[in-house]
Amino acid sequence: MTKKNLILVTNDDGLDSRGIASLVDTMEFLGEVVVVAPLEPQSGMSQAITVKQPLRVRKARLNGSISYAVNGTPADCVKLAFNRLLPRKPDLLVSGINHGSNSSTSVLYSGTMGAALEGCVNGIPSIGFSLISFDPKANFDMAKKFSQKIASKVLKYGLPLHTCLNVNYPDVSEKDIKGIRICRQTMGFWQEEFDRRTDPAGHEYYWLTGEYFNREPEATDTDEWALKNNYIAIVPLRTDLTCYSTIDLMKKWDF
Amino acid sequence: MTKKNLILVTNDDGLDSRGIASLVDTMEFLGEVVVVAPLEPQSGMSQAITVKQPLRVRKARLNGSISYAVNGTPADCVKLAFNRLLPRKPDLLVSGINHGSNSSTSVLYSGTMGAALEGCVNGIPSIGFSLISFDPKANFDMAKKFSQKIASKVLKYGLPLHTCLNVNYPDVSEKDIKGIRICRQTMGFWQEEFDRRTDPAGHEYYWLTGEYFNREPEATDTDEWALKNNYIAIVPLRTDLTCYSTIDLMKKWDF
Repeated sequence: MTKKNLILVTNDDGLDSRGIASLVDTMEFLGEVVVVAPLEPQSGMSQAITVKQPLRVRKARLNGSISYAVNGTPADCVKLAFNRLLPRKPDLLVSGINHGSNSSTSVLYSGTMGAALEGCVNGIPSIGFSLISFDPKANFDMAKKFSQKIASKVLKYGLPLHTCLNVNYPDVSEKDIKGIRICRQTMGFWQEEFDRRTDPAGHEYYWLTGEYFNREPEATDTDEWALKNNYIAIVPLRTDLTCYSTIDLMKKWDF
Repeated sequence: MTKKNLILVTNDDGLDSRGIASLVDTMEFLGEVVVVAPLEPQSGMSQAITVKQPLRVRKARLNGSISYAVNGTPADCVKLAFNRLLPRKPDLLVSGINHGSNSSTSVLYSGTMGAALEGCVNGIPSIGFSLISFDPKANFDMAKKFSQKIASKVLKYGLPLHTCLNVNYPDVSEKDIKGIRICRQTMGFWQEEFDRRTDPAGHEYYWLTGEYFNREPEATDTDEWALKNNYIAIVPLRTDLTCYSTIDLMKKWDF
């Protein structure tokens, strides 16, 4: 008898989001699922970890799977899962399905992807999934189907050490999907605005708002291009941030 | 008359730390300094941004420089600085001097480096500085001297777009420094322990603790090796997380 796959499911929208329920639902076909997810939404938390506060864990249930809610970040959830909550190291970590895009530069701020990066730092094949829709009634059917397909492939082939996948789904139905593209991260940035307001006591405060700016809208090998053209975009990510070409450049600097 | 350099100083230990005062002190020799730093310590915050809370700004003074304290993350500080607080885009962003190491995998969790990455995403040459000492009485003299030297070089040569520098100083005096090495990020991870305790009401909670594990202690081109051998380690980082070799690998997968 072959051992059943153990799959850790997490996210950054919290245990009560529809996206994580969809992901659990579809992962239950691939193995034994354990969910360890934030108690509260953790959007924008990147790979942050909680060092100044203790963490608490509350047992729960999501679909048929054992679940834990943690009062911390997505990366905290992954660390706690690996070290305290799972019976053994999992065969796969999946994070999401996030409500909203994590393509291009958004990956740097994403709690969903922070969890996936944390997984692969620890040597576990990891995937983050995001659907480009903030609609509370968003249809996750297409994303569910392809998430199962992509996860199956990763379980079959594995991923190189310290590498994970960033999967983004355009907000279209399955019949309009043109296919899956393996892409690179688009060069771009968020042009912030900061909405300035005044509170009833007369003090100023700011809300972060902004618009995404694509530095290379014509590049057909990028995730932004793929998504705009109704492809599912998969970007393999690495946790080695070294810019090797700049090493060579700087070795010529005279220190 | 040449325009004076405008230098943004930030950190993750907060406006009251000795490290940022040291950095401001030495940067004032290179140009006009404006400080925008977190009100509270933000260690472990990675490149997190605050999306669910408004931000508030308090004007302050650090040495001779105009300073602002923000109730947010290091990345929030950088975004607010660029969009609301600085008179123009700065010529340089420096973050730190952090109390403790940000070498190897620690860069992924570092608020100090989150600020530097945020700077370079926005096209500003950016450097994060860290001294490998948590001693509240740590001596910043050597780190100050070399930070000025490294910042001068960056002002002179610039850095490629979407690239920043991660500078770590060993905790030794200047006479024991063997030199500066341009390195790559060491492959490693944090082996967490999670100290489990019980509160007075009988409920469990966990404190994150852990030990760093180096996957390649013999590799002489890494930042960990350099630091262990009394070199200053500079790792150039990029915000493009794409793992290009895995793109080629995955194109052979049959979807």
